[in-house]
Amino acid sequence: MARKHEVLTRKLRMGMVGGGPGAFIGDVHRKAAHLDGQIELVAGAFSRDPRKSRQQGRELFLDPKRVYASHTEMIVGERARPEGERIDFVSVVTPNVSHYEIARDFLRAGFHVVLDKPMTFNLRQARQLRALVRRSRLVFALTHNYTGYPMVKLAREMVRQGELGKLRKIKVQYPQGWLYAAHEKAGAKQAVWRTDPKQSGPAGCMGDIGTHAENLAEYITGLKIVEVCADLTAFVRGRKLDDDGNCLVHWEKGVKGLLSASQIAIGEENGLAIWVYGDQGALEWHQEHPNYLYVKRPEAPVEVWRRGNEYIGAKSAAAARATRLPFGHPEAFIEAFANIYVNVAETIRARAAGQRPDPLASDFPTVDDGLRGMLFINAVVKSAKQGAKWVKIPKV
Amino acid sequence: MARKHEVLTRKLRMGMVGGGPGAFIGDVHRKAAHLDGQIELVAGAFSRDPRKSRQQGRELFLDPKRVYASHTEMIVGERARPEGERIDFVSVVTPNVSHYEIARDFLRAGFHVVLDKPMTFNLRQARQLRALVRRSRLVFALTHNYTGYPMVKLAREMVRQGELGKLRKIKVQYPQGWLYAAHEKAGAKQAVWRTDPKQSGPAGCMGDIGTHAENLAEYITGLKIVEVCADLTAFVRGRKLDDDGNCLVHWEKGVKGLLSASQIAIGEENGLAIWVYGDQGALEWHQEHPNYLYVKRPEAPVEVWRRGNEYIGAKSAAAARATRLPFGHPEAFIEAFANIYVNVAETIRARAAGQRPDPLASDFPTVDDGLRGMLFINAVVKSAKQGAKWVKIPKV
Amino acid sequence: MARKHEVLTRKLRMGMVGGGPGAFIGDVHRKAAHLDGQIELVAGAFSRDPRKSRQQGRELFLDPKRVYASHTEMIVGERARPEGERIDFVSVVTPNVSHYEIARDFLRAGFHVVLDKPMTFNLRQARQLRALVRRSRLVFALTHNYTGYPMVKLAREMVRQGELGKLRKIKVQYPQGWLYAAHEKAGAKQAVWRTDPKQSGPAGCMGDIGTHAENLAEYITGLKIVEVCADLTAFVRGRKLDDDGNCLVHWEKGVKGLLSASQIAIGEENGLAIWVYGDQGALEWHQEHPNYLYVKRPEAPVEVWRRGNEYIGAKSAAAARATRLPFGHPEAFIEAFANIYVNVAETIRARAAGQRPDPLASDFPTVDDGLRGMLFINAVVKSAKQGAKWVKIPKV
Amino acid sequence: MARKHEVLTRKLRMGMVGGGPGAFIGDVHRKAAHLDGQIELVAGAFSRDPRKSRQQGRELFLDPKRVYASHTEMIVGERARPEGERIDFVSVVTPNVSHYEIARDFLRAGFHVVLDKPMTFNLRQARQLRALVRRSRLVFALTHNYTGYPMVKLAREMVRQGELGKLRKIKVQYPQGWLYAAHEKAGAKQAVWRTDPKQSGPAGCMGDIGTHAENLAEYITGLKIVEVCADLTAFVRGRKLDDDGNCLVHWEKGVKGLLSASQIAIGEENGLAIWVYGDQGALEWHQEHPNYLYVKRPEAPVEVWRRGNEYIGAKSAAAARATRLPFGHPEAFIEAFANIYVNVAETIRARAAGQRPDPLASDFPTVDDGLRGMLFINAVVKSAKQGAKWVKIPKV
Repeated sequence: MARKHEVLTRKLRMGMVGGGPGAFIGDVHRKAAHLDGQIELVAGAFSRDPRKSRQQGRELFLDPKRVYASHTEMIVGERARPEGERIDFVSVVTPNVSHYEIARDFLRAGFHVVLDKPMTFNLRQARQLRALVRRSRLVFALTHNYTGYPMVKLAREMVRQGELGKLRKIKVQYPQGWLYAAHEKAGAKQAVWRTDPKQSGPAGCMGDIGTHAENLAEYITGLKIVEVCADLTAFVRGRKLDDDGNCLVHWEKGVKGLLSASQIAIGEENGLAIWVYGDQGALEWHQEHPNYLYVKRPEAPVEVWRRGNEYIGAKSAAAARATRLPFGHPEAFIEAFANIYVNVAETIRARAAGQRPDPLASDFPTVDDGLRGMLFINAVVKSAKQGAKWVKIPKV
Repeated sequence: MARKHEVLTRKLRMGMVGGGPGAFIGDVHRKAAHLDGQIELVAGAFSRDPRKSRQQGRELFLDPKRVYASHTEMIVGERARPEGERIDFVSVVTPNVSHYEIARDFLRAGFHVVLDKPMTFNLRQARQLRALVRRSRLVFALTHNYTGYPMVKLAREMVRQGELGKLRKIKVQYPQGWLYAAHEKAGAKQAVWRTDPKQSGPAGCMGDIGTHAENLAEYITGLKIVEVCADLTAFVRGRKLDDDGNCLVHWEKGVKGLLSASQIAIGEENGLAIWVYGDQGALEWHQEHPNYLYVKRPEAPVEVWRRGNEYIGAKSAAAARATRLPFGHPEAFIEAFANIYVNVAETIRARAAGQRPDPLASDFPTVDDGLRGMLFINAVVKSAKQGAKWVKIPKV
Repeated sequence: MARKHEVLTRKLRMGMVGGGPGAFIGDVHRKAAHLDGQIELVAGAFSRDPRKSRQQGRELFLDPKRVYASHTEMIVGERARPEGERIDFVSVVTPNVSHYEIARDFLRAGFHVVLDKPMTFNLRQARQLRALVRRSRLVFALTHNYTGYPMVKLAREMVRQGELGKLRKIKVQYPQGWLYAAHEKAGAKQAVWRTDPKQSGPAGCMGDIGTHAENLAEYITGLKIVEVCADLTAFVRGRKLDDDGNCLVHWEKGVKGLLSASQIAIGEENGLAIWVYGDQGALEWHQEHPNYLYVKRPEAPVEVWRRGNEYIGAKSAAAARATRLPFGHPEAFIEAFANIYVNVAETIRARAAGQRPDPLASDFPTVDDGLRGMLFINAVVKSAKQGAKWVKIPKV
Repeated sequence: MARKHEVLTRKLRMGMVGGGPGAFIGDVHRKAAHLDGQIELVAGAFSRDPRKSRQQGRELFLDPKRVYASHTEMIVGERARPEGERIDFVSVVTPNVSHYEIARDFLRAGFHVVLDKPMTFNLRQARQLRALVRRSRLVFALTHNYTGYPMVKLAREMVRQGELGKLRKIKVQYPQGWLYAAHEKAGAKQAVWRTDPKQSGPAGCMGDIGTHAENLAEYITGLKIVEVCADLTAFVRGRKLDDDGNCLVHWEKGVKGLLSASQIAIGEENGLAIWVYGDQGALEWHQEHPNYLYVKRPEAPVEVWRRGNEYIGAKSAAAARATRLPFGHPEAFIEAFANIYVNVAETIRARAAGQRPDPLASDFPTVDDGLRGMLFINAVVKSAKQGAKWVKIPKV
């Protein structure tokens, strides 16, 4: 029992696969993990190039013995350490193509896993990973980070409490503009793998960011997509994967609406936004101004709910828990991201200590979210290939 | 010749059909016509109820002899006056169902016509009216008023000059919320006729405001819709016409995008807005903040172009012409509406005087716009009935 | 008695002094007067240059006999007409220097007067004009047009009803940027007279727009300024009058705050804005986005009140009366301006008909507002000359 | 020499004084220090109550031996450790009253210091601390955190490069509303010490947040305040220190403007904002929307510069260095705060390694900023006591 509680008296130890020099999302994961002083990075296989991996390890002040040349080396190396000194979990931040294999291997080796999205390269892997996670009883989290924002959690709670009445319509969009030209031909690393079907899978834009839109709508409303009618385009000459997509969507319970994503929308940066309409009220939220939730009721002034106020905590404990700073001191992307790590860490600690985790700590995206994301990708690609016909998404 | 020029020395004389007590759009037309001191209202058949028509005439200080009980009376009455004392044109602001007949009769009687949108009750009437207008050589304007905004004219000019490069994507939306409940059952006049297929025609929301979205996109980009895939819904129980619609759209030249309209989007008031993306730049405009046009270029700060500045006039003579006030003194809905009347008035004067009108004065919506609006309505209704299949829109 | 009511059966007849070719504010006055179909312009002395005056008259379709070479000619000419055919009132839109003389002469001749602000060239004239108006029992209005906005009227009502509790602080500002360089040296008409002490009086920026800020704060809060401490500057080389001013202000009842105005604030267009703070709530309004009033209460979401909704009319009859269009159809500068004319017209009609005007029709700026504006100008100029010492403003 | 470089191979070790249970700013400092994985907290004296200090230490997973009962104990304890295992620097986050003594003792003991603002309790202490820092040659940083925002650094660079021309006017404001009522009487910890002259010093609101406004303006423009004319008020009954203040300000080089701060402005949260006007351009920035800088030029569209773009890095290396995430992924308060720690850490490392630090790493507020802050506080308090007379601020 003393053993069990050891994990409560120290920072959790994280390993990382991916996130070498020049990577974007790996660095975000590290900052998010560090922010709250609950987690320390102690091991990594940052690149397939051992020199780059070592370089990254040095910059992160890691013990060189725990900087590995591959994820399999890391598994071997960490398992070779005394039980109380191993990594507690791994964070996997490689391109989509290798997600499944790495996550599988760590799960089989008994490590909890945090995995970047989209979950896998294809649907088959997603199903297999889900089965594996279920059998493993390990903690598995997918970093659909936008649901980490406090005001998104508030939005979900307002829907749950019926403040919007019966839902009718959802509009969710994720416009970006950075792939408006063929940057992949110029070798831009972030562009190259995202536009390569061998690394990204069957979808481009819709997989990379459309899944965030899909996940956000589902998280807030609790409704799953029933069917989509998708119009995908690769506007940039020579591009093999969609860089723009527009979908008609039917959600459960007769809710209808639009989901669109683009990476050729010049001037848009990271414009994830959602509007949810019910028969008694509506909500609006914008990722680039994340501290505000607009609440609309019939024949009444628009209400601007602002993060960090007591009236928000009174409405949503999850939003309060996800909040670090008082009102007016803006929180943003990394803090939202960190909210996944905070909850994962608490869940891991509780399990290790044989305790029941705070139910609020379970508020992070799971392997089911990941599978639904892959089903969504498959459906939109199939619909688009048929010239925008309705394609159903099976229940998970 | 002296005769010809008489019209240049006085205000134009307008008659009105519709716009009785409690009407919304009739009063807007009158204010728009009055604003610039170019037009005076001198005759009217404001209501089918002669008492109401007279009441309205008194409130407008009209000569009681020129307040008529019907549009046919007005035609007879005005034609009976000496040639130089008749109305110069008529403004028709009745519900859709009577548009065709009234416009037809005035055109046949030789009067210029300003007609509210949508142009007719059905497509057949639209085709007939177009044939009639073409034969008549009279001035005919349709009040798709949103294209009267200076910044919309600037947007059109920027597209024309190629500032956005080759166009790729359009997103246009018109959300409203006022019909979120069955106000028509409570007898609200504006709600009753708009939700009644016998007065409005085959479409509800898509006819009433979806056509504005369709027209705005076409005006700015110069591109016509090739095909639509529409998902229409009547969310309010018992409503016979759509109160919400979402469309995938293909425009000419490979441009794709989304068009949506709603009247159940609680909290939205009159949120017509458009985003146009090309391969070299993008534009964004919002009707509720009409004095601003957002111009986006790759890897550069967003530019906020503000109505009334010299740099706008330097770019677009049409925008300058449509501007009354210096920068920072906001102009709005009535002023945009009035820009149609200003141009119609100048065109009528020029024709009467045997002059060639300023080409900029031709910048108002025509019978062709009206026909395309009716084709759009027909296509979306047909598509929706087929469960959101693609339906082509014929060229006009 | 039949005679009395004649005025109720026709448009009111307006004369205008000033507003010749190229004038800005004269044209605004005309459009504002025309908008609602209650007033027609029938006479004018538009310029001291008779040729220009005639040109303007022709463009306005006036009877050439009623286009005069001077305001004195207009008085003579109009008084020579039969009583029922004269102008009902005059609108005076000349530069400040001639305001007093013209207004005085019309009042003495028995005509109601609408006068542009600031009211007079100096304080002495303001006191004399006030005495004259009081004796005359004629209608006199000053076009502090910003108080014509519906949301400003709503703000006033909320303060009156105590929604903000006891007031504490006011911040009011009017930044413009258009005089950032010496445009007056290049002969720009609007710049020349505004920067010339012989035409504008003792203050430049503070007289031209600072008085609007002073009037707006007083209108909304009902509080008069007790004393000011003003720091005025002429930033542009060679300019004789202030083009920027910052004031500490003490209002009645212990309310404190800031009033600033500028014409060298590059990029600002017409940024009149006000914040009012009480011990139970606060208000915020921006002239460039006039359809919105932000209402703030302790520990609650910000409320965005939007023009045209029933909940606004329920709170403020004056706001409802000042509203022409439904929510979401923006109203703006000319409409606010026209609200003064609407109320003036109704008041004139009522008096002519021997009726008591609707109390709401008295909601327009008076000669007392004008006098307080002049007292304000004098105080800030005096304070600034003393190096920003406190100067008291006498009660009116 | 090997010794020197040891510090380059590990995280820097931080001690903290203050920041016990329930503290706001202490937790911000910790998160800011942790964010980038450059610093680890290893020691603390978190509260004067040893029990609370220990509790906090446990929550932070600290070695209980390094959780101290007082800052003097910490100094003794850390100096007793082998040279390579001591804290590298201390972060002091107590209320103002103890700043001087704690900072002094650590400096004398040879530790680098990060100190929260305002720097000291009074001006005398500020002068003494400055002398001490200068003699010590240790790194000393004051957490005027708002200058850590990338867009503030961009603003400074634009001013430096002359993009605004010769500066004319500054408007800077910091409105808050949370002290609108006497929360201190209810025992709210944050309110109690801030409104207590014995803990906060001679000023309340102006010391707590007015100094941020003063520092921000100076940072961006490079101009120091020459004199102020201040009107301070304690609006809440029984409050001994100002909770609202408005100042006329004269900066160097003839620049004039306004500085205001409030803690009774209901509905305002943390509304620090600045406008800087030159004779060729202007800038505007808002802390609550920190990723945007508005750039205004004469007769041109407003430019919205957005954090994270290459064009920003091309203009300002300091802004680029202060940026962690791509455009559209918002950064906020903690990230800005962390930018001070990043630069402090790099400077400490470089000194320890006998290297010259990157000049950009010196971009953090210093003891001179702290002294000027105290001079500012003294001047505004003196001016206010004299009924808002001009008071000069001596050069530092």
